[in-house]
Amino acid sequence: MAEQQKIPYKIYLDEDEMPENWYNVRADMKKKPAPLLNPGTGKPMAAEELEAVFCRDLVQQELNNDDRLIPIPEEIREFYKMYRPSPLVRAYCLEKKLGTPAKIYYKFEGNNTSGSHKLNSAIAQAYYAKKQGLRGVTTETGAGQWGTALSMACAYMGLDLKVFMVKCSYEQKPFRREVMRTYGADVTPSPSMKTEVGRKMNEEFPGTTGSLGCAISEAVETAVKTPGYRYVLGSVLNQVLLHQSVIGEETMTAMDKYGVKPDIIIGCAGGGSNLGGLISPFMGRKLRGEADYDIVAVEPASCPSFTRGKFAYDFCDTGHVCPLAKMYTLGSEFIPSANHAGGLRYHGMSPILSELYDEGLMRAVSYEQTSVFQAAEEFCRCEGILPAPESSHAIRAAMDEAIRCRETGEEKTILFGLTGTGYFDMYAYQQFNDGTMTDSIPTDEELERSLAKLPVIG
Amino acid sequence: MAEQQKIPYKIYLDEDEMPENWYNVRADMKKKPAPLLNPGTGKPMAAEELEAVFCRDLVQQELNNDDRLIPIPEEIREFYKMYRPSPLVRAYCLEKKLGTPAKIYYKFEGNNTSGSHKLNSAIAQAYYAKKQGLRGVTTETGAGQWGTALSMACAYMGLDLKVFMVKCSYEQKPFRREVMRTYGADVTPSPSMKTEVGRKMNEEFPGTTGSLGCAISEAVETAVKTPGYRYVLGSVLNQVLLHQSVIGEETMTAMDKYGVKPDIIIGCAGGGSNLGGLISPFMGRKLRGEADYDIVAVEPASCPSFTRGKFAYDFCDTGHVCPLAKMYTLGSEFIPSANHAGGLRYHGMSPILSELYDEGLMRAVSYEQTSVFQAAEEFCRCEGILPAPESSHAIRAAMDEAIRCRETGEEKTILFGLTGTGYFDMYAYQQFNDGTMTDSIPTDEELERSLAKLPVIG
Repeated sequence: MAEQQKIPYKIYLDEDEMPENWYNVRADMKKKPAPLLNPGTGKPMAAEELEAVFCRDLVQQELNNDDRLIPIPEEIREFYKMYRPSPLVRAYCLEKKLGTPAKIYYKFEGNNTSGSHKLNSAIAQAYYAKKQGLRGVTTETGAGQWGTALSMACAYMGLDLKVFMVKCSYEQKPFRREVMRTYGADVTPSPSMKTEVGRKMNEEFPGTTGSLGCAISEAVETAVKTPGYRYVLGSVLNQVLLHQSVIGEETMTAMDKYGVKPDIIIGCAGGGSNLGGLISPFMGRKLRGEADYDIVAVEPASCPSFTRGKFAYDFCDTGHVCPLAKMYTLGSEFIPSANHAGGLRYHGMSPILSELYDEGLMRAVSYEQTSVFQAAEEFCRCEGILPAPESSHAIRAAMDEAIRCRETGEEKTILFGLTGTGYFDMYAYQQFNDGTMTDSIPTDEELERSLAKLPVIG
Repeated sequence: MAEQQKIPYKIYLDEDEMPENWYNVRADMKKKPAPLLNPGTGKPMAAEELEAVFCRDLVQQELNNDDRLIPIPEEIREFYKMYRPSPLVRAYCLEKKLGTPAKIYYKFEGNNTSGSHKLNSAIAQAYYAKKQGLRGVTTETGAGQWGTALSMACAYMGLDLKVFMVKCSYEQKPFRREVMRTYGADVTPSPSMKTEVGRKMNEEFPGTTGSLGCAISEAVETAVKTPGYRYVLGSVLNQVLLHQSVIGEETMTAMDKYGVKPDIIIGCAGGGSNLGGLISPFMGRKLRGEADYDIVAVEPASCPSFTRGKFAYDFCDTGHVCPLAKMYTLGSEFIPSANHAGGLRYHGMSPILSELYDEGLMRAVSYEQTSVFQAAEEFCRCEGILPAPESSHAIRAAMDEAIRCRETGEEKTILFGLTGTGYFDMYAYQQFNDGTMTDSIPTDEELERSLAKLPVIG
């Protein structure tokens, strides 16, 4: 009780407590994540090859498996101060509502206009692009969180931005599109007629509403063909997890400050950017044998790369223009059934997290979406934050752990990542409110078919 | 420079620095705001009369012109901790972009799911309704910020809520409606067929898309006729300004802590809830002769109650079921031309602010909407927050003051209220982005016609 009294509803670090370095979990991994391969040669991609697509400094970060701390440039730290530190919230109201002895904390990354944690890496990538003297960058966006974050970062850095937005999102989420335009981004529905990949896709599948994998191919093609441009990506890559480590670093500093140690750490996982960022420094302690945590990835049952996928080299995009990555994957041609958590609808998973998962250092669970929205509704009514469908996967898992504690009487400390807000997902909430939301999971046959097409390496 | 170094980007108070009392500016006013009158008798409304419509404790607060400090109940302070203290932001990036020697601060109230400051009064009103043992409350909403805030507050307190939402908003802002529904509110487009006022309106003006004044009448009628219900309002009333004083109190504490004194204090003004809340404690110092500030209300040129209205008793609603209030008004039948700042489209103004303005203790300016959206775009690109159209009026005025400082070389300290975010206003931004936004201000003849219908009192 004395301890409870001391913990405020929201822990905000002071600016001088904010991290000055990103934490690179690879430095503490005995077995490093597998390297990206050239799809033509099957050999590891050299820095020079990667620099045709990605910014120079970011390639260095991508390949850096050794340095534990990588300094955050002053300009990025200044930008972080505009919306960070993000609050670590003690979910007193949720605990009370659930009647659980568990103590629940969440790190809330939604208090910025991009509405999610994506801004942490967007500003870093925009900074390095600017530093390299580039004119602009290209990217893809599905749910729109990454595109929004990057448009904010590029507006701040004075960098042009071309976004390929999955066509169905472009049409169903016009407001996301308008936020990007307000920040000066050029937004094109994908597949477009502006790229070879896009034209081919439109020819083969007339009327297609697009996919993330295709939008990636279009963005990469445009970056490679436009002088002064590079491609940037909001998840999956090692560099992204590095930038997102600020989430975990701030969380750890705040918890250490109040003498709190999480027993369970939970995050939703699509490509792994949020989960990887949140757990990185904690995983570091675990890898160094300094502490133990039960680390849980939560994914949608409709796109279950950890829980039903295969750990293998696969293509990152539909057009097969990107390097191959070794990751838990459902196959690059896997099309997840309709699910409103657009940010979790990627066929693969971060190579870092895939390696950690494969070694048993973390576990994974999956949920169907109506159960996820039930948790979202319960959460927003007592904690006051309307969560993104993606984030709500973590809420569901955290609530289930807290309910288990109610049954066993355990006073576990549960930490989860609340990655963002759902203000642009109200169409999904409307379906939930109207009772018309459905669930759907892939059959074993579907997964087998898709996994049969994995590339054969070496 | 030394001072600049010390001021962080965002000043967050600790929880124990949050106010324990609301500040009642009326206690320091020599001339009190005029009382509400019974439209039938022309006499001041007695507490018992008001209690037929409003909650008991709120009526006491409405009539209390004497107590300077009114304790904030423990339950409300706990709720405030879920999303308060709100940050006081030093707009370093905006200052740099404008090249101004001025120091700009803004108090940001948008970091909660309602997206605005409205929650500060919503939770107070829901609390007192619950305390009185009521079953539910009714209200109206135009832009939707107030309805959203109240639906969050009622969900938290376990209180039913019936919202009458102006029909054009109900149709144009389906996502606002869905947020309210997610929080369990019953949302009806107004005019409806559920009330006498609504049916009459639908008969007289078939196909009408409604107005705030009509929605108020419907909400009041429903409250009076439904057992266990009362009506609650998000602006204009004295009680609302009282609750919103937390904005000004936190701001003053934060500024005092860092030894900063604002020269100019700016807020947008529709009914006056945000401006009144922000300036209250500062106005108190001004009234007590302890300090002087240049206090500025910013309103849309399309609905200019301060700058072109009349200080007189008027009806608060279209159906004329509410008490009369003495205020700056454009006439209760005034229909403002289309403007995206729905929260500023009210014909009247808070009686407290009206009195202070009439005494010359503050001034007012007005802007047309395209100039307001230009400011919003410039602001969001450097400060990272996409502002609500309402809030952007204050941004426009603050930027103009800062630009004046650049010209004169004055190092003024400018404080403005950033009341909320524009995530549900992207249709307006789309018009701005597409270059199809128009301006329109009422003619003198229109205003004369509307003001000719003011009620004759005594």
